Amino acid sequence: MINLELHENYRFPFPADRMKKIPRSGIREILMAAEGRPMISFGGGVPHDSCVPLPEIRDAFEAVFTNRGARAFRYGTTEGEKELREYVASWLKGLGLQAGAGEILIVNGSQQGLDLLGKVLLNPGSTILVERPTYLAALQAFSPYEPQYDEVEMDDQGAIVESFKEKLRKVGTFFYTIPSFQNPSGVCISVKRREEIVNCLNETGCLLVEDDPYSQLYYDYPPPAPLCAMGVKNAVYLGTFSKMVSPGFRLGWIWTSNNNLMKHLITVKQAADLCTGLFQQYLLLEVLRRLDIQKHLKRNRIFYASQREKMNHYMSSHLCGLMDWNYPSGGMFFWATLKNGLHAGKLLSRCVERGVAFADGASFFAGEKDFSRLRLNFTQCTEEEMDRGLLMIAEEIRQMPIN
Amino acid sequence: MINLELHENYRFPFPADRMKKIPRSGIREILMAAEGRPMISFGGGVPHDSCVPLPEIRDAFEAVFTNRGARAFRYGTTEGEKELREYVASWLKGLGLQAGAGEILIVNGSQQGLDLLGKVLLNPGSTILVERPTYLAALQAFSPYEPQYDEVEMDDQGAIVESFKEKLRKVGTFFYTIPSFQNPSGVCISVKRREEIVNCLNETGCLLVEDDPYSQLYYDYPPPAPLCAMGVKNAVYLGTFSKMVSPGFRLGWIWTSNNNLMKHLITVKQAADLCTGLFQQYLLLEVLRRLDIQKHLKRNRIFYASQREKMNHYMSSHLCGLMDWNYPSGGMFFWATLKNGLHAGKLLSRCVERGVAFADGASFFAGEKDFSRLRLNFTQCTEEEMDRGLLMIAEEIRQMPIN
Repeated sequence: MINLELHENYRFPFPADRMKKIPRSGIREILMAAEGRPMISFGGGVPHDSCVPLPEIRDAFEAVFTNRGARAFRYGTTEGEKELREYVASWLKGLGLQAGAGEILIVNGSQQGLDLLGKVLLNPGSTILVERPTYLAALQAFSPYEPQYDEVEMDDQGAIVESFKEKLRKVGTFFYTIPSFQNPSGVCISVKRREEIVNCLNETGCLLVEDDPYSQLYYDYPPPAPLCAMGVKNAVYLGTFSKMVSPGFRLGWIWTSNNNLMKHLITVKQAADLCTGLFQQYLLLEVLRRLDIQKHLKRNRIFYASQREKMNHYMSSHLCGLMDWNYPSGGMFFWATLKNGLHAGKLLSRCVERGVAFADGASFFAGEKDFSRLRLNFTQCTEEEMDRGLLMIAEEIRQMPIN
Repeated sequence: MINLELHENYRFPFPADRMKKIPRSGIREILMAAEGRPMISFGGGVPHDSCVPLPEIRDAFEAVFTNRGARAFRYGTTEGEKELREYVASWLKGLGLQAGAGEILIVNGSQQGLDLLGKVLLNPGSTILVERPTYLAALQAFSPYEPQYDEVEMDDQGAIVESFKEKLRKVGTFFYTIPSFQNPSGVCISVKRREEIVNCLNETGCLLVEDDPYSQLYYDYPPPAPLCAMGVKNAVYLGTFSKMVSPGFRLGWIWTSNNNLMKHLITVKQAADLCTGLFQQYLLLEVLRRLDIQKHLKRNRIFYASQREKMNHYMSSHLCGLMDWNYPSGGMFFWATLKNGLHAGKLLSRCVERGVAFADGASFFAGEKDFSRLRLNFTQCTEEEMDRGLLMIAEEIRQMPIN
């Protein structure tokens, strides 16, 4: 049954039916209402300003300007600059994934990769298997294509494989996973579990969509190799420079060795925005030429690990007994559970009034919502903000009526 | 009937049904086959390198770097930077369109605007009214959402309004037009015809989608005000900096005063790529602060007008009797018709072998294809290339068998 939302003088079905399928995070509306007020934010997943390689960017600009001039400001090819695709291919080889530059499509941040995959792969009613919980913005990207979701439960080793193969057999399209330091749960899938997942995928022939923004943000030990590097037959890998270098470039990539899928992805990329900006690709290339990327990542890991320690310290000081949380070995988030059946969305509304924000966990569930969950980012705030912000959250929790 | 294209080991319907609806231009495949060979191209719609304001871009970078530092490399808001939206609003006011910054969404080139509009507005089977011919890449952007097309014929004043109101009444969604120096036909809709179109739109309540990349590229006299500035009740305006400043920024915008539509556009923009790059927005803002935009546009108009003259001269020298063409008063293209029933697609294949390319006109028709048409860009080539390239096209035409 189509519900027609009619605008004054506008006779037609509006919006399109698919718009009713896109989940809202709620936090956008809440934050817009609070716009202009000072806000301590544990909400986003944003690299710290100190982790942006500014000197290399300045030198890179000079090089692009001197070597390319006006040519850097033309339209680019839809696939992306060959040299950048070659860099990505060699980066992936370093992760154990034998990739060719022709198997890479440069996208406007890996979020665009999710949108393009949805467009190419999903019919209305197609089933996707996702982790429980999963990345909110992946649900937002896929949902306009009107899929159904099935969920696989996770423990601290990753997706539980007991009913996994059964679910994969029923899945109409693909299994979507963030294997390393998942957003929001922080879980890193163990080697053994990865092997089991790969076997299940190959036995069923199901397509894997592996989203891997966080694998370089490890604070205790490096994660295992990507699933795509472990012999999955049908696979797509999404990567991004947003967490490695800076989100300001809006540069990510899709890898797949499936030529037919790649051909279709290029078609929809062209229809979606013609090409990714040439200038930003040249600029990043020159940054990557100048930056000792391993040293850069190591320095950032040391910084973020210390942020994680501080956050854990103040969470322990203020929130003990009020919520439980994981201690993530990588990534950008603590994933927490409120005690006493308290509702994280209601807590968020109160907290935003006080000037502190986090991400409501309910948005990260494709199926039944768990309203007790919240996600707290630790990469952005100062120690003083952590102390003050987490204390405010604790005070608000104490004032909430227990269900 | 769903045609299932099965990949080895891949059990599922692939690709999604919508992929069968996307028109191919053909030129991509032809050019890829010729990759590496030198090519005189009349194919694209690309600003000339000499029209990029390089000194201002260099100074702008220094300013962004000095004033914003690492903050320029964060994630931006989905709507786009407030200062850039204010600039666009004031630019639109200069065109006679009373726009507020809150009515502007910054997008990754106006091509993304077309994709987002398709996503928000189109159900499978929805009808769009387009001009005959119309912009190929608009058809590519809309078609994944599986609309039907109805076409309105054009004369040299624009869409013929005789059967227009009747068609508008039947249209399920919107009328899509490029009113000034249309791509590909070069037609600029006259004032009188604009008034008639606006009246028809308002009487039927149909939504207008006005795509306006070329209105500043006039070589004889400025075009009339945009339709959106003439009192259309339901309207969307798409603009771009690609032709005004440079396509390298990948920055365009959507304007609409329909708050509900804007809300939905922001939702799908967030799902599609989170945000447009902050750095490129800051950079463009600083360019716009330094650039005398009217002087810059005037200089570019003088350059392109002389390109148009040269192109017309060599077309007259080489192609008289072999094809007819318009003499465009703005934009970037000559729109031509082969004589004797010759097939432009077949001519293109022969020409690419020789090292000269143009755009096959058939792709610009939503309905029945006209295979005698071709589009020739005049903004990019040198005089020597025009002379040599057009002569090669003439030689190939003379060698083609007449049907």
